[in-house]
Amino acid sequence: MTTLTHLDAHGDVRMVDVGDKAVTTREAWAEGYVRMQPATLNLIEAGHIKKGNVLTTAHLAGVLAAKKTDQLIPLCHSLPLSAVQLEFAFEPASANSEPARLRIQSWCKTSGQTGIEMEALTAVTVAALTIYDMCKAVDKAMTIEGVRLLRKTGGKSGDYVATP
Amino acid sequence: MTTLTHLDAHGDVRMVDVGDKAVTTREAWAEGYVRMQPATLNLIEAGHIKKGNVLTTAHLAGVLAAKKTDQLIPLCHSLPLSAVQLEFAFEPASANSEPARLRIQSWCKTSGQTGIEMEALTAVTVAALTIYDMCKAVDKAMTIEGVRLLRKTGGKSGDYVATP
Amino acid sequence: MTTLTHLDAHGDVRMVDVGDKAVTTREAWAEGYVRMQPATLNLIEAGHIKKGNVLTTAHLAGVLAAKKTDQLIPLCHSLPLSAVQLEFAFEPASANSEPARLRIQSWCKTSGQTGIEMEALTAVTVAALTIYDMCKAVDKAMTIEGVRLLRKTGGKSGDYVATP
Amino acid sequence: MTTLTHLDAHGDVRMVDVGDKAVTTREAWAEGYVRMQPATLNLIEAGHIKKGNVLTTAHLAGVLAAKKTDQLIPLCHSLPLSAVQLEFAFEPASANSEPARLRIQSWCKTSGQTGIEMEALTAVTVAALTIYDMCKAVDKAMTIEGVRLLRKTGGKSGDYVATP
Amino acid sequence: MTTLTHLDAHGDVRMVDVGDKAVTTREAWAEGYVRMQPATLNLIEAGHIKKGNVLTTAHLAGVLAAKKTDQLIPLCHSLPLSAVQLEFAFEPASANSEPARLRIQSWCKTSGQTGIEMEALTAVTVAALTIYDMCKAVDKAMTIEGVRLLRKTGGKSGDYVATP
Amino acid sequence: MTTLTHLDAHGDVRMVDVGDKAVTTREAWAEGYVRMQPATLNLIEAGHIKKGNVLTTAHLAGVLAAKKTDQLIPLCHSLPLSAVQLEFAFEPASANSEPARLRIQSWCKTSGQTGIEMEALTAVTVAALTIYDMCKAVDKAMTIEGVRLLRKTGGKSGDYVATP
Repeated sequence: MTTLTHLDAHGDVRMVDVGDKAVTTREAWAEGYVRMQPATLNLIEAGHIKKGNVLTTAHLAGVLAAKKTDQLIPLCHSLPLSAVQLEFAFEPASANSEPARLRIQSWCKTSGQTGIEMEALTAVTVAALTIYDMCKAVDKAMTIEGVRLLRKTGGKSGDYVATP
Repeated sequence: MTTLTHLDAHGDVRMVDVGDKAVTTREAWAEGYVRMQPATLNLIEAGHIKKGNVLTTAHLAGVLAAKKTDQLIPLCHSLPLSAVQLEFAFEPASANSEPARLRIQSWCKTSGQTGIEMEALTAVTVAALTIYDMCKAVDKAMTIEGVRLLRKTGGKSGDYVATP
Repeated sequence: MTTLTHLDAHGDVRMVDVGDKAVTTREAWAEGYVRMQPATLNLIEAGHIKKGNVLTTAHLAGVLAAKKTDQLIPLCHSLPLSAVQLEFAFEPASANSEPARLRIQSWCKTSGQTGIEMEALTAVTVAALTIYDMCKAVDKAMTIEGVRLLRKTGGKSGDYVATP
Repeated sequence: MTTLTHLDAHGDVRMVDVGDKAVTTREAWAEGYVRMQPATLNLIEAGHIKKGNVLTTAHLAGVLAAKKTDQLIPLCHSLPLSAVQLEFAFEPASANSEPARLRIQSWCKTSGQTGIEMEALTAVTVAALTIYDMCKAVDKAMTIEGVRLLRKTGGKSGDYVATP
Repeated sequence: MTTLTHLDAHGDVRMVDVGDKAVTTREAWAEGYVRMQPATLNLIEAGHIKKGNVLTTAHLAGVLAAKKTDQLIPLCHSLPLSAVQLEFAFEPASANSEPARLRIQSWCKTSGQTGIEMEALTAVTVAALTIYDMCKAVDKAMTIEGVRLLRKTGGKSGDYVATP
Repeated sequence: MTTLTHLDAHGDVRMVDVGDKAVTTREAWAEGYVRMQPATLNLIEAGHIKKGNVLTTAHLAGVLAAKKTDQLIPLCHSLPLSAVQLEFAFEPASANSEPARLRIQSWCKTSGQTGIEMEALTAVTVAALTIYDMCKAVDKAMTIEGVRLLRKTGGKSGDYVATP
């Protein structure tokens, strides 16, 4: 890792100027997990959570949050997203007393001058927070973990693929 | 864990009515971590991240996000917070090749009819996302982990303290 | 209907001062309809709309909109809602070639110094717009109609009940 | 009306990917009505509503709402509007005891990858809600009706014109 | 002016905890000016600005901004305002070639645990920006000046009145 | 200054249609000042303000506000900014009992169909309000002054440079 030579002399914050970068198709994928009691996962699967349809609510919360990433992350640029989609997968506890997990994966796409990693990560994270909110009446110990960028494409800096 | 007996007959979403709950002082503490390369942590500590003061930016992003939790989490109630504060701690890598971590802790306080766990968790999470954004130019593999509720006080359901 | 004697001399806009009104429990109920092709209603009921779960999405959109009514309606006061709930009912077309309708009803509750009619009407209206958005690929002629206040309680001006 | 073949296997919500659609000029026109007591319409025309200039307030509320349609309608794309304009027309009661109506018409324009029907409908609807808010002190029975898309142009699916 | 003894050891940002302060009626008044060409002021007075009714638009923009002060000013608390009102006054140029000015005054009121100076100042400032926007086609040299707190009442720290 | 011939017949508000204007690179620079007690300026420079890092907080508030200018100024168009940057300069009081001043300068850049003067002015103004908020515990008489457009480039109407 190299030293950052373009550092502002006073160390103050700075929104990067992307005005000279090319407009290209850019995509990003992210993932995250909500670790929970096996019984909580069962209640979600069975549709027995009091606040209602957990996954649809989390999905919509993730999409809405991705669309306002520029307001949540101070130095992010505003980008019109052409797609934001989320997928959820149940990972039941294995035999050996491990907790269950709900996996959340997001995919964002835009045509713009800078990447949308933050949109993909924000979608996953707010979806995870929403799952916590929907289920906290039965399981306050749920933990959000493993939130990371899986892959990004487009842009001058080239593609990125996370290690497995 | 008991069956949820108050389930809406059609399984549809439902914002809980908190109108009959007592107005009491309610507090919540949450924590989370950003795991990163040791060199990234060093750049943050040294103030050598190109986008500027990482921790102050993350702190403000967390406070602002806590104040709009009701817009991020669909079924959350709107609550006027009397305090939102965050703290950051550096956890350098130990000798045995482990990654470094930045710990984020939040504390929220209100006088209202329902708890503010979601505000505390949202503050931590958006602060973590902001750290990712500020440092992603040097470390795209950063991971958000261990986001959980540490403690809550106030309200009829009693206090909650996470297991260590 | 009497003349409005307190009119600002210059006819300019004015947010009413509610600071001297009593804090009481206030509730409001509103309704509205989306008129559509019978086939569209059938697709919603069968869960065959491409964009997904129509009613859950409309419900959440209504709740989120109710919580930001003060930003949508310029002279509305900000009020923390203790509950926002919506219900949907299918009204199939009768034999005589009439269109089908989806009925939306909302209920809002707060403890505050002014009423929440606008929150209830906003919830219904944005839910109706969301139904249009979810189904417009198959039926662009859908019409929103009959959006009105059904009832309100609480406050000095007394209760209101709409004529049937 | 054909069966929707692209339905997500699990029926979950889905924001449509518009990334491969052409960027073209797109326009949409919508209309709606607020039905009210003839005396209420007279007060608006005479500028005698206590809260002030009703039509200017409704116009601005409609424009502001159109600009945040992507936050109100969960699966809508964000589009930078190049124009949003509203017009209002008084429709006095005819002789035979019918109610009076205020007609609202909107026009939106953009250069983008998807249509702006929702922006035009949102502008009309929030303008109508604002009229209700400005006048509800004198007429709580006002009803919003006839909110529909009048016309849209641009895009691959071709133009749409509502039946008269 | 005394030294600030409660300074956070690391100089980091901090939202003040107001949870132990009394709930009292609090009011604040602020003012500001837009200095402009005498001809610009004349166009505003005559209603001849192309974008429309300047003062009503500025008034509504000020009210809407006051209601979201907590999102604009990072460390501000969220407070439900019971009133926000603005007044405008024309100050024509005097004989001796001085510029004309438009004076904006705001008044905010709440019942809460902390003051609303920022809401009053935000209302004035955003109203002034809106006047600039409405008139910039004819006068780009307009200047916003003299934005200050006039008076505040309520709260433990006592009343404040600006020097004339 | 010429008469405005395109005035809407009814004097109503109107968002200008920019759909036929060329997409060009557009930049705008603005400035503003916060006049304060010399001792207040010293506290800011020394990092002794209780609420924390004043300039970083003001900088981020300015960037965030610039990104939502279209929601603050009713008839502004939404524009994706490619850069927003602020600079601060201390202007200590001169010998002759004058007040001290903090100068704020902003620079905004976009590729779009209309100018971003309002974004640059909004960034300066909200940064100034934030400085007031951070320091008001020690100096309530601070005044915001001299907020004006310094320069703009791009677009058909040509460049603008303020007189010194």
